[in-house]
Amino acid sequence: MSVLLRVAYDGTDFHGWARQAPDRDGVPTRTVQGELERALAELCRQPVPVRGASRTDAGVHAAGQLASFERVTPIPCENLVHAIGRALPRDVVVVDAWEEDGERDVRRSNAGKHYRYRIREAELRDPTTIRYEWHLARTLALGPMREAAARFVGTHDFASFRAAACQARTTVRTIQAVDIVAVAPGLVDVHVHGLAFLHMMVRIMVGTLVEVGLGRMPPEHVDRLLAHPDRGAAGRTAPPSGLVLERVRWPGVDPSFAESGAPG
Amino acid sequence: MSVLLRVAYDGTDFHGWARQAPDRDGVPTRTVQGELERALAELCRQPVPVRGASRTDAGVHAAGQLASFERVTPIPCENLVHAIGRALPRDVVVVDAWEEDGERDVRRSNAGKHYRYRIREAELRDPTTIRYEWHLARTLALGPMREAAARFVGTHDFASFRAAACQARTTVRTIQAVDIVAVAPGLVDVHVHGLAFLHMMVRIMVGTLVEVGLGRMPPEHVDRLLAHPDRGAAGRTAPPSGLVLERVRWPGVDPSFAESGAPG
Repeated sequence: MSVLLRVAYDGTDFHGWARQAPDRDGVPTRTVQGELERALAELCRQPVPVRGASRTDAGVHAAGQLASFERVTPIPCENLVHAIGRALPRDVVVVDAWEEDGERDVRRSNAGKHYRYRIREAELRDPTTIRYEWHLARTLALGPMREAAARFVGTHDFASFRAAACQARTTVRTIQAVDIVAVAPGLVDVHVHGLAFLHMMVRIMVGTLVEVGLGRMPPEHVDRLLAHPDRGAAGRTAPPSGLVLERVRWPGVDPSFAESGAPG
Repeated sequence: MSVLLRVAYDGTDFHGWARQAPDRDGVPTRTVQGELERALAELCRQPVPVRGASRTDAGVHAAGQLASFERVTPIPCENLVHAIGRALPRDVVVVDAWEEDGERDVRRSNAGKHYRYRIREAELRDPTTIRYEWHLARTLALGPMREAAARFVGTHDFASFRAAACQARTTVRTIQAVDIVAVAPGLVDVHVHGLAFLHMMVRIMVGTLVEVGLGRMPPEHVDRLLAHPDRGAAGRTAPPSGLVLERVRWPGVDPSFAESGAPG
């Protein structure tokens, strides 16, 4: 019997999702997985390893991360949400918890992910929103960005869109949709839906879309990047602050991408 | 000739506005004034003392703080905004700068302050907004809160509404308006307009209004607190995260309270 948790966090003060060894000076590294494991160990009075669906990077946020652990505590799931919540720091919260029989693993069995990347076009940065966006002092041309975005959709070799440190064995991935939404004047959201992603893939895709939006790359350049692996020819890696893991889809709980009404 | 700066900041990671000596271990204490003085010293290649209109506490934010310094650099004010902005960390920004002749001091000559305090009524905290609000898992009755709020308006002895550490010689202050606005479902803003404030006064006023909103104190209790100084009989000090110094009014630049259209 395993327990699944829907987790939201502000990634600003975390060194990402994945638990890490203490640094050279022995100072513990603050991670979301580490905080959840600490809170659960406190609650269950024994070590409780937690598994996450996505290893978000330092500074990246989540509204709908998915995590799981083996049931060792008799606390009912309804109470778990509040019990874990009280044991967690204010920048992480468990928003839902439920039990499952069977062997489904959050990493291998999830039904895809939805990321949102937020860009703010403004002369000056706003210190109360800067943790949640990429501030650009220039204006983006959304038409060419949308032309470029459409070229990502489908199954392609995304080798041009991964970090040097990425250790995935294959670089072929499937993108279901990339939607560029003008939310408000000066506020642009890029929604990316896909089954699985390479390390930093969304941020390099967004960095490339911004090059297109600034007129420095034509939309067709995306085709070339997908045909000929060349990280150096893609855009810069967009800063982590703008990225939110909106939802990890879970079969039987979340609608599939096709059912979710997401534009494609 | 002095230069005035309009400053905005996210107070989360600051030990307040006022410069402080390094802590016992010699670690510098991060303050907004300290960051501004560091940035200006870098720009002007000499020490530049900065004066602020309001000494906001640790964790309190600002959208319209006012600061000033003696002109020592030939950089024109138009360029100052961007030049200082580049030398500042991402959680502080200078939004405007202008020069003034004469001897007006930002602390003594300002025309009043507008604070906003944000309360979120929700079952669970949201980690991406919690830095900017007071999260309450209960619902407030706004009618009684508005009745209580009206009792603050006018010139009163606010001795019940100041921190133990407050060193003001007199505790009589003038409040121009206290407005309680239901911004969205579950989101309540308290706007406080006044000429000057005691240490933690707004947060203790809000803590008291919340007691009224939860039905633990009747609105008339405010009259008693104003008539008989007793900090222990007022509400708790509301957490700093919910408070924003919206605007320090400056004669000739900002409309006065009466002209600003603020309800009263």
